Parts: sequence; structure tokens; C-alpha cells
Amino acid sequence: MHCGKQKSMTSSSLFSKQVWPEMNGNLMDFLDEPFPDVSTYEDFHTIDWLREKSRDTDRHRKITTKSKESYWELIKSLLDAWSGWVVMLLIGMLTGTLAGVIDLAVDWMTDLKEGVCLSAFYYSHEQCCWTSNETTFDDRDKCPQWQKWAELMTGHSEGAGAYVLNYFLYVLWALLFSFLAVSLVRVFAPYACGSGIPEIKTILSGFIIRGYLGKWTLLIKTVTLVLAVSSGLSLGKEGPLVHVACCCGNLFCSLFSKYSKNEGKRREVLSAAAAAGVSVAFGAPIGGVLFSLEEVSYYFPLKTLWRSFFAALVAAFTLRAINPFGNSRLVLFYVEYHTPWYMAELVPFILLGVFGGLWGTLFIRGNIAWCRRRKTTLLGKYPVLEVIVITGITAVLAFPNPYTRRSTSELISELFNDCGALESSQLCDYVNNPNMSRPVDDIPDRPAGPGVYSALWQLALALIFKIVITIFTFGMKIPSGLFIPSMAVGAIAGRIVGIAVEQMAYHHHDWIIFKNWCRPGADCVTPGLYAMVGAAACLGGVTRMTVSLVVIMFELTGGLEYIVPLMAAAVTSKWVADAFGKEGIYESHIQLNGYPYLDVRDEFTHRTLATDVMRPRRSEPPLAVLTQDSTTVEDVETLIKDTDYNGFPVVVSRESERLIGFVQRRELTVAIKTARQKQDGVVSSSVVYFTEDNPQVAEACDPQPLKLRRILNLSPFTVTDHTPMETVVDIFRKLGLRQCLVTRSGRLLGIITKKDVLRHMAQMMNQDPESIMFN
Amino acid sequence: MHCGKQKSMTSSSLFSKQVWPEMNGNLMDFLDEPFPDVSTYEDFHTIDWLREKSRDTDRHRKITTKSKESYWELIKSLLDAWSGWVVMLLIGMLTGTLAGVIDLAVDWMTDLKEGVCLSAFYYSHEQCCWTSNETTFDDRDKCPQWQKWAELMTGHSEGAGAYVLNYFLYVLWALLFSFLAVSLVRVFAPYACGSGIPEIKTILSGFIIRGYLGKWTLLIKTVTLVLAVSSGLSLGKEGPLVHVACCCGNLFCSLFSKYSKNEGKRREVLSAAAAAGVSVAFGAPIGGVLFSLEEVSYYFPLKTLWRSFFAALVAAFTLRAINPFGNSRLVLFYVEYHTPWYMAELVPFILLGVFGGLWGTLFIRGNIAWCRRRKTTLLGKYPVLEVIVITGITAVLAFPNPYTRRSTSELISELFNDCGALESSQLCDYVNNPNMSRPVDDIPDRPAGPGVYSALWQLALALIFKIVITIFTFGMKIPSGLFIPSMAVGAIAGRIVGIAVEQMAYHHHDWIIFKNWCRPGADCVTPGLYAMVGAAACLGGVTRMTVSLVVIMFELTGGLEYIVPLMAAAVTSKWVADAFGKEGIYESHIQLNGYPYLDVRDEFTHRTLATDVMRPRRSEPPLAVLTQDSTTVEDVETLIKDTDYNGFPVVVSRESERLIGFVQRRELTVAIKTARQKQDGVVSSSVVYFTEDNPQVAEACDPQPLKLRRILNLSPFTVTDHTPMETVVDIFRKLGLRQCLVTRSGRLLGIITKKDVLRHMAQMMNQDPESIMFN
Repeated sequence: MHCGKQKSMTSSSLFSKQVWPEMNGNLMDFLDEPFPDVSTYEDFHTIDWLREKSRDTDRHRKITTKSKESYWELIKSLLDAWSGWVVMLLIGMLTGTLAGVIDLAVDWMTDLKEGVCLSAFYYSHEQCCWTSNETTFDDRDKCPQWQKWAELMTGHSEGAGAYVLNYFLYVLWALLFSFLAVSLVRVFAPYACGSGIPEIKTILSGFIIRGYLGKWTLLIKTVTLVLAVSSGLSLGKEGPLVHVACCCGNLFCSLFSKYSKNEGKRREVLSAAAAAGVSVAFGAPIGGVLFSLEEVSYYFPLKTLWRSFFAALVAAFTLRAINPFGNSRLVLFYVEYHTPWYMAELVPFILLGVFGGLWGTLFIRGNIAWCRRRKTTLLGKYPVLEVIVITGITAVLAFPNPYTRRSTSELISELFNDCGALESSQLCDYVNNPNMSRPVDDIPDRPAGPGVYSALWQLALALIFKIVITIFTFGMKIPSGLFIPSMAVGAIAGRIVGIAVEQMAYHHHDWIIFKNWCRPGADCVTPGLYAMVGAAACLGGVTRMTVSLVVIMFELTGGLEYIVPLMAAAVTSKWVADAFGKEGIYESHIQLNGYPYLDVRDEFTHRTLATDVMRPRRSEPPLAVLTQDSTTVEDVETLIKDTDYNGFPVVVSRESERLIGFVQRRELTVAIKTARQKQDGVVSSSVVYFTEDNPQVAEACDPQPLKLRRILNLSPFTVTDHTPMETVVDIFRKLGLRQCLVTRSGRLLGIITKKDVLRHMAQMMNQDPESIMFN
Repeated sequence: MHCGKQKSMTSSSLFSKQVWPEMNGNLMDFLDEPFPDVSTYEDFHTIDWLREKSRDTDRHRKITTKSKESYWELIKSLLDAWSGWVVMLLIGMLTGTLAGVIDLAVDWMTDLKEGVCLSAFYYSHEQCCWTSNETTFDDRDKCPQWQKWAELMTGHSEGAGAYVLNYFLYVLWALLFSFLAVSLVRVFAPYACGSGIPEIKTILSGFIIRGYLGKWTLLIKTVTLVLAVSSGLSLGKEGPLVHVACCCGNLFCSLFSKYSKNEGKRREVLSAAAAAGVSVAFGAPIGGVLFSLEEVSYYFPLKTLWRSFFAALVAAFTLRAINPFGNSRLVLFYVEYHTPWYMAELVPFILLGVFGGLWGTLFIRGNIAWCRRRKTTLLGKYPVLEVIVITGITAVLAFPNPYTRRSTSELISELFNDCGALESSQLCDYVNNPNMSRPVDDIPDRPAGPGVYSALWQLALALIFKIVITIFTFGMKIPSGLFIPSMAVGAIAGRIVGIAVEQMAYHHHDWIIFKNWCRPGADCVTPGLYAMVGAAACLGGVTRMTVSLVVIMFELTGGLEYIVPLMAAAVTSKWVADAFGKEGIYESHIQLNGYPYLDVRDEFTHRTLATDVMRPRRSEPPLAVLTQDSTTVEDVETLIKDTDYNGFPVVVSRESERLIGFVQRRELTVAIKTARQKQDGVVSSSVVYFTEDNPQVAEACDPQPLKLRRILNLSPFTVTDHTPMETVVDIFRKLGLRQCLVTRSGRLLGIITKKDVLRHMAQMMNQDPESIMFN
């Protein structure tokens, strides 16, 4: 048809046929410019780690070569080498700042539910009484400038009326905060809800969720996190802080093309950002790095370890410079114990571990069941209403009990604390022996006073309340972390056990078990340590963290002394929880949402082979392949239209089925489109060539051929059909593959994608394989 | 020839031909029993990680299946699951105990060079004077029970004669100890020499060095380590302790078939043992785990992280129970500083980092040059003489200087120390202001007294001495670690810088740089901190550790406060040292010895393809392959005899070259040998079949065929000839391959072994590729 018009082109193509083999084909080819968007991935797709890595190596190679050309290029290459450290510095500083601002705002707004500072409305209760010079040492929390709402409005600070008014306003503020939070999330950034850690784990494993780490999410998550925590709901800020830190990481990635254009490199930065997030959440930089390594990250090269550590430290020191807690302490819960622990105490510690494991199981099962209900029933349609109802219930039930009324972190802090001589808390209401004259730090065990007994009752009620409400809270459409609520449950249980052991040891110090280590008049049991061990056990039961958990707790106390109790509890809790189900809360949520996450920790132990997993199955139509020199442009376009595969294998011929390469759908589409627009003579009947040699154009009248070897991946990953699936899973994990071709004696048989692997693993574990998200 | 005799067999083989396809061939095959030694590797060979892993999965699968059969099997499976923790516990306990014993013995023998305790000859100087009640607080080190040699022999403790006698005996003891050490190593365990870390890194990366971690090595290394350290040579016990811990790990592996029979699992245990070794060396369990992760280990799954942590903790607490330092401290150098550091001090800290980097470079270059000389010249033939000469020089030069005479760890300890009010050391000889009355901890900067000035001179001489002698000491045929000497060099330099800054700040506190932070009468510079920063910098320059270095140092001081100076110095030192050469001392020694170690940290950035690396090259004879159904037993035997390859690819036929599998040389040899012995009718002219279907025996008279599909690996790893070498290197590293076949359009082209990869990498870096050890 276009024969006459194409003659001149054909002769030029004949010319080039003779020239090209000697010259660098790439230079001659006018299609050499990168195609628009070819290097990026579509939303909800999996990245190809190997490809990203080799693209980065190419980039690096180019810069190194160029750097020898001129001083300017040398400087550019040095800047490029330094950009990783700059990004870390920026992430650390922004994360630390945001964490400080969040802490300050939460402090203020939590107190706003109870009252207001007259000297300056933006002061929290503590700050208000700091600056007051009428504060006495005895009652550090009482000063005339700080007025409860009832006092301010009616002038009466005592009596039933004042109580009811305070109660009412407490609930009202809580409802207002949570309504604001859920509305902001719904309207502006739906991705800002939840803890974010399951999604970040999935993203780090190589999945694309556009906008999940965007600027908008960062802003809204920061604001709504403050609102959600202030509303008094049973949730914490630790998980969302990791999400916020990762958003910061993503933000700064966009400043440097090295990171913004390479999804693999970007994920290295995000891993480090996650470490910075945990670092500021607890003030534990080493624990943060280990958390990122153990729990969150997928690909964690040593270089990233070092940089994560740097980012975590910068974040921690920025936070300390802001000093939100006003005590120059880096850590969230600073504790100092003065008494060593004794071998016999390992029994209650291990019991706390068992409790932690059981709590973990209960929480995961309950929460997942509730979340599934939310997904499948009408409940999911009314997220705002759900938040309002839960906030209402929480606030109404929380106010009467002093241990639930205050913020959860304050509660944990008090429970961790050792009772010093000057402690005025109800929990430290022990009967004092008037004859005692000892240094402040060395207080012997004493009988509990009435305050302790009433505190015990209140704590028991608080425990039940927290256990139930947390299950319903986590997973609502507001930012919600579960570190703090889990730790609270454990700390309450631990403190109760601790006081029980202490009183038992005091009253029965002649019992055989106490005889050896607990003389009368000695300080032998620290209930605060029990609270800490309980907190570690419960957190471990829910998240299944191990090393990072112990290291975070170690950084809180700063003494190697208490590592053994913490470790005993963490190990027990993990074992108990694992006995009921291998997955932690994050993995469970990943599964619930069907994210394509290939867990590095799951051991695949089934005896299946690649041939059992590969597509096409026996009943399916044969694999969609291209041949190297006999497919026309039209055929390719039909294939692209009819299928939705991400790429197509290219074989020598349909008869021999010998594989020569793999071509990406995206690159193929763009290449054909561009060729049709820019390259004269490429028509539907043009033959697409993937061969190395130039095609022999039989007749001068034939349509101009389209040469696409350039976009052909000549090193597709292959396994044989006899390869055990455990090896295939290993390869997918370690190399971060997207797909893998299956051959037998050199013939192409089929293809295995990451999705196929995940589906097969789910099948083997008797789960619903259809729940896995599109590839 | 054997035709008549074989008839009956042939008919039975014909029978089986019909039956086998329906039945499980493995059950019928009388060769099914594992071949003797097939599962093990030969000495100086590389293991195949993928194979080890799948063997472990098989084992695990068997146990799980069996455990459902009976209670006894269930208990056995539980025991198997627990064995990992038991091994860790045992390793921790033995390592901790050995470290304690070594510490006590070194203490005693080091003091033996100077004198002896009269009340009990096995008491060290410190223990001797502890137990004495005549010890005054002022002179804790002087008591009548402890007598120097001259005093004991001649009765005079002062004077030139006594000095010369003490000098003489000091040198004599040193020579005796080192002679004993080198003789024991030479006669009983040649592998016990050196630090052992380069070899352990190589072993962990999947290399077999038989006996390197044996019981004999363990015993001799422990004994000679004590002797070598006591002799006063410039070496430390930290590296060798890692070797000792790994020997313990290997010892306990042999108790459990799970570990002793699987080289992959064994390496997981060894990684954990390395962590335990560092944990006891410094009393830093977290640092130990990170050291193992960062520096030593190759394959470090998360499970190993948790277990390593456990082993490291057990080891640390065992050591503390033994309490060799007599101070209940876990850490080797316990320090407490009272003064914060100031921003301006970062300048000297960074200068110390530069010094550390330069020292690292100097040490590595000098030491490698000397070790190469030792390997290539006559020097290597007289290891005993070398040790004697170096010990003689060390002892003669060390005695006159009080800072080199004492043991290096004591020296570091003193240099790290802050000068308290009660410190009697020469380094703390400051001019006191008589009007001062302050608490003990808060001592302002003071002018240096004459003691400090003379100490400075002695330290400067000690610095030069240590720098020179350490280069010649490391690598001799005795156990020798370089952590302590490196730290000593850095600590001396740091203390000198620290005192200089302190005095400058005192005398010139009106200078603009000091004005802001150093008021007169304030305590603003801590020279001990400079010593610590210097030690970190020098250690970092030599080993290129980063995170683990900072964490170890953090565990020594216990305060996050000082992490920033340590980090600044560590980063600077690494960058400076990296500018002169990428390799740390361990990598340099690995290269010097030509171990086949594929460093995970080296980035391979060259543009070569698999086709450039694979064998055979163009000039070489074609690849030695087997065909699936046309090779005779004789052909195979000839091939095995004529070549020394570790395995052979099996192809469909020589014409099509389509790959069907890979067969290990070892398994092939054993299979043919066993078949010749046990299987009637297998003769030289028998055809070896690798096909799935049973061979068609053309004539009844043909020799009985040998079916070997059973030993054929049907899933050999392949890449195409166009695969970039960076991808191939990545695959070798991450999957721990031994070899990989190269194909093109389904045709077998060649093979790449780990050795080829290493040789190619060395070539690309312009090193001598021939130095790499046999595969």
C-alpha cells in the first residue's frame, strides 16, 4: 500500500544495514532518548529490584566517567556521592522537629480537655505551673493560673456540679478532636489513617502505592495524629511517627534525582527514615535502627545500616534540642532502678511473658475479626460515625478512673517509676516506718497503704477497659499506633503483679522462696521493673519484635542489668503468641488487605516444584510470546490489547520455543507508539525484529521493519521446571524479582510472577489466594 | 563380552522397565542410601548455599511428617527445634568461661614478668595486694607480699643493680612466654596463629578449611593466646577471642546432626559464636551482635540475629559471674565522664579521625608489605626466630617506658580515665588551687604539673614505638589481635591532643574559640574523652567498622551523650582511610592469602557481561559435558580422570546443546564406583542414562545401562550470555552459588564458577588474579 512512498526509506535502511554492525547502534538510533515514563512503574505494581539496581549502577558509571572530564563534573560527582548523607541529615532534622512539635501539641491539647492556663492559653498544665512562682514543691501540679473548666466557668472547683461539668467538657473536647481528625483524614488524605507500618513494610518490599508517602499525607497525618492522640483514644503516636518519618524521607528523595528516579535507592532512604521515626518515638536510636532492620525493611545493605544510624541520631538530637518533655531526656520513659533483680523473680517475669503472648493473640484475633467485619459489612461505610461512637465510649468510661483519664504515656511513665521517698503518687502510698532514716534511694519494702489498694482496683478496671477498647480502636480511619496501648496493658498487668509479689515478700519473708533473697527491711522487689517487663512482653506479643524490642527497652533503662528479665519475657511472649499463630499484627494486616508482601521470615517448606506454580496451567491457553523475527506490529498491538501481562517473552520461533529475551509491556507500547509517530514507513504490517543481525528485507516493496532489540531484556531470569518452589521463593525474595521464566531443556514452558508465588504460598497455607492484590 | 552372563540381569531390567514408571523409582533403587561422604565437601572447597538450604528443608520436612506419627517422634522434633537455643546457651557459657580464664591467666602472667606474690604465687599483683591488710589507700599497688624479682633475689628493691636485674628478668620472661607460644602453635596447631578473623570471614562466606575450628585449635589457641598477650608483645586478645568462640561454636555443632551435617546451618551458629566472642572481648553484647552482622557474617537471617543476641548475653553474664576484673563490671574499659562536650571540640575530634584514617592506611600498607615479604622471602622459614627477635626488641624497648611496660589494656584504661580528685596517676598531676573546695566530681581545668609534662614525653615515645612495632607484630605465627594495639595508638594520640586542648583552653580562655564555652574555673575539657575518640578513630581506620564500632564504644561509656564525637571521628577516619584504599585489614589479609571471599560490600560497577567471564574462552577446548543418553561409563571415567572440574553439565545431545541438568563430580564418582561394585552388568561400555524414561535397550546382548537421573541436579542455575556481570556477581553473593551455567537461546555456552567471578573481579581491579586460592 505505502510501497511507493517508502522506497527512499527502504534504501536508507539498506544502507544502514551495512553500516550499523560496525557502529554503536545506540548512537545512530533516534529513539535512543529514554521514553517518557518508561522508567516508572504503575500504581499498585511491583518493582524489579535487579533492574533498579542495574539502572543505578549505569547512572553511577556515567557520573564516574564524566567526572574525569572537567572540574565541574568532578564536583557534581562529589555532590552526588554526598547526597545520601545530606538526605539523611534533612530527614533526621525534619523528623526530630515534627516529633517535638507533635509532643508539645499533644501535651497542650490533652490538658485542654481538663482546663486551661490563664497566664497563657497555649501552655500545658505542666508548663503553666512551671512558670508560676506560686507552685509549692508538695503540689507541683497545682497552681492558681491553671484552672479546670468548671472552676473557670462557675467559680466552683469542687462538688458534683463541677464534676459533671468537667466530665461533660472532657467528653465534648474528645469528640471534637476525634471528629476533626477523622474528617480531615476522610476529606484530604485517606492514606493518613492507621499506623502505616503494614503499608510501609509492603512499600519497602517493592510495591508502589502512589501518594501513600506524599506531602499531603505528611501534613494531614501530622495534624490528625495530634488530634487523635489528644482525644484520649486508646492509641499511640509511635507507628504513625514511622509513617511521618517515611513521608519526610520521600519528600527529600524528590530533591535528588539519584533517589527520586530509582525506586530501589528510594527504598534505602525510606528504611533509614523508618529508623529515624522509631528513634524519636522512644528516644532510642540504636533500637530504631534495629527495628528498621528487623521489622520494617526488606533490602537492608550495610551502607543503609550506617546511614540509618546517622539519621536516627540526628533525629534524636534534634528532638532533644527541642526538649518537649522539659527534662533534657532523650527517652520517652526514663527510669532508674536501684535494686538488682533476683533469680526467683524470673518466675513472675515469665508469667508476664505468657500474659503478653496471650494478649498478643487475643488482640490480633479480635482486631482482625473486627477489621474484617468493618471491610465486609455496612460498618465500613460510616467511618466518621464509628470514630465518634468509639471516642464517646472511651471518653465516658475513661473520665471516672484517674488511670485512664490521663494520657496513656503519662500512665506508663508512672507505672514504670520506682517509688522514691518524695513520690506523692497514690501508687507509692506505703505505710512508713517512723524509725527509718535511710538515704533517699534505698527504701526497704513496706506494707501497702490504702492508696495502693485503691490504686490496684482502679488499675484492674483500667486493664480490662484498655484490653477491650484497644481491639476496637486500632484500624479506625484515624492515625493510630499500637505501641503505647500495648505497653499500657502490659505495664498495668506488670505493676499489679509487681505489687503483689512485693507485698507477698514483705508479709511472708519466711517462705522458702523469699528466704534467700528478701530479708526483712531490705528493698528486694521493684514493682516498676515488673511494669516494664510486662510492657515489653505485651508489645512483643503483638508485634513479635525481639532484638529491637529488648534494645529499645535497654535504651530506656540504660542498664545491661535488666536485659535478662526483659529478654526472658520477650522470648516467652513470642513463643506463646507464635504457638497460636505465626503472624504479628502487621503481617496480619498486610494479609487482611491483601498486599503482595513476600515475607523474608516465612519458611516455605512444601515440596512443590516450579512446574506446579507456573502459568499457563494445563487448562489455560498457551503462553503469550513474541517471536524474534516473524511478528508484525499489528500482532503485537493485538497482543497488548488482548492481554494485561506486564511483559512478554521473546522466542526464536514458535516451533523451537528457545527463549532469547523478555520485553516489558510498557516499553513495547511506547516503542511502537513512538515508531508509528516518528519513524516513516512503520505500518501495521511491519515486522518487528528482535534479532541482533539486521533483517533481510526480501523485497524492496516490503514495509519498513521495526527493530526493537534495544528494548529487549537479553538476560531474563530463568529457572527449570524442576526447580523446587522453596528455591524459587528464595530467589524471588533475595533478588527482588518481578517475574521469572520457566524452561525445560532450553525450551520456554511458562512464567512465574511474584503474584503467582504469593498465591501459591497462600494456597499452601490454606488461605484464600484470591485476596492478594493485583500485581 | 559379558553377554552370556548378563542375560538374566537384562531380562530383569526389561521387567523393571515396565514396572518402574508406575512406582516410586527411589524406593526400588538399591542405590538410594546416601553415598558415603557425598554430602560433605572437600577441604578448601566452596559450599553451595542453595543446596545446603534445601537439604535442611528436606530434613525439617521429614521431622515434621514423622512428628505426627508418635509421641516419641514429637518429642524428638521438639528437641530438634530447641537444639538451636541449647547450642547458643552452651556457646555463651563456654565462651564466657574461657574469656574469664584467659583474663585471669593473662593478669597473673603479665605481673609475673615483674615480680611474684609471696602469700600465694598464683595471685596477680592486684589480687595480692587486695588480700593484704597492710595496703593503704594511697598506694593501693604497694604491699609487702608483692615483691619484685630483684627484691626477692637480692633483697634490694632500689638501685641500678635491682633495675638491671628486673629489666633482665622482664625480657627473659617475655622471651620464654613467646617462645612457648610459637612452639606450641608450630607443633600442635598451625591454624591457631594470627587473629583468625580473615579466615572466619572466609569460612562464613562458604569456604571449607578443615581443622581451622577444631578442638585442637581451640585448646592451643586459648593457651598460646595467654602466653602471647602475657609476653608483652603489641597484640590484643579480641580477634583471637572471636576465633576461640567460633571454635566453641563448631565444637557444639558436632553434638547435633542438624548443625554438624549441614554446612549452611553450621555457619549460622558460627555467626552467633562470633557475636559472643566480641561480647566477652569488650563486655558489649549489642556491639558484638552488630560486629558479627556488619563485619564477620555473610548470611545473617533474622533468626540468627535473635540467637546471636542470646549467645552474646549469656557469654557476657557468664564472664561477669567469673568477674575477672574484680569490679563487677561487664565492660573492659569502664569510664564515666562528668562534663559535656562542646561544638568547638568537634574540630580536634575530626582531626583525631584524620589521624585514625592515616594510621589505618599506614598500618595496612606496612603490615601487608611485611607479610608479603614474609611469604616470599626466607623470613617465612624461621617463624620461631622471628617471634623471638620481635619479642626481644619489644621487651627491651618497652621496659624503660612506664607506659609501654604495663599491659596494653591497662594503658588504655588509664588513658580513658577522667582525672578525679583521688587519682594518683602521673597523668593527673595537675597544679591544685588550694582555695578550691568543690565536690569530687566537679574539678575545674587546672594547669598541668611536671608529672603531666613528663607523661606527655613518655606517651609520645610510646606512640612511635607502638606504631612501628605493631606493624611487624600482626601476622606472626602466634595468636595476635589488633583491636587493642590500634586502640592504644589512638588513645595515646587522643590523650596528648586532649591535654594540649585542655591546657590551651586554660591558659588562653580569652581566645575567641574558647570564650563561649570555657570560663575560667570551669571543667570544660575531658582529655579522657579525647583518648576514647582517638581509640575509636584508629580502630575504625584499621578495620573500617562503623555502626558496631560506635555501639561498642557507646556500651563502654553508657551515655548517648558521647555518641556524636565518636561518630564524627569514626566517619572521618573511615573516609580518610577509604580514600587511600577500600580494604580494611581483614579484607587485605584475605586478599593476601588468596581466599575465595566474595565481599558483599564491594560494588561491581564494570560493564562486562557473563560471556566475557565464562569458561571456556575462545582459545580453550570446548566445555566438558555429558550427554543424556550416549555417554558410556568409560567415557565418564576418562572425563573424571582427565579433568578436575567439580561437576559436569548434562545436555540433550552434543548437537542441540540444550541443557538438562548438572551433575556433581563427587556424586558421579561415587555412583559409578558403587554401581561397578554392587550392580551386576555395569561395565565400561554400559551407557550412562540421565533421561526420565527408561532407556531402550536395543539388543538383549547390550551391556546393562546405568541410570543416574537420581544424582542429576535438574535445576542448575543459568544466566544468559548477555547478563551483565554486576547481576551475576549479585546472584553469586545473594544466593551463595558455587557455579552457574551460561546459555544463549537455550543452548549451553559455558560455565562461571565462583573462582571465575573472583578472578574477574580481581582483574577488573588490576590485581593479580592468580593469587586466588583453588576453588
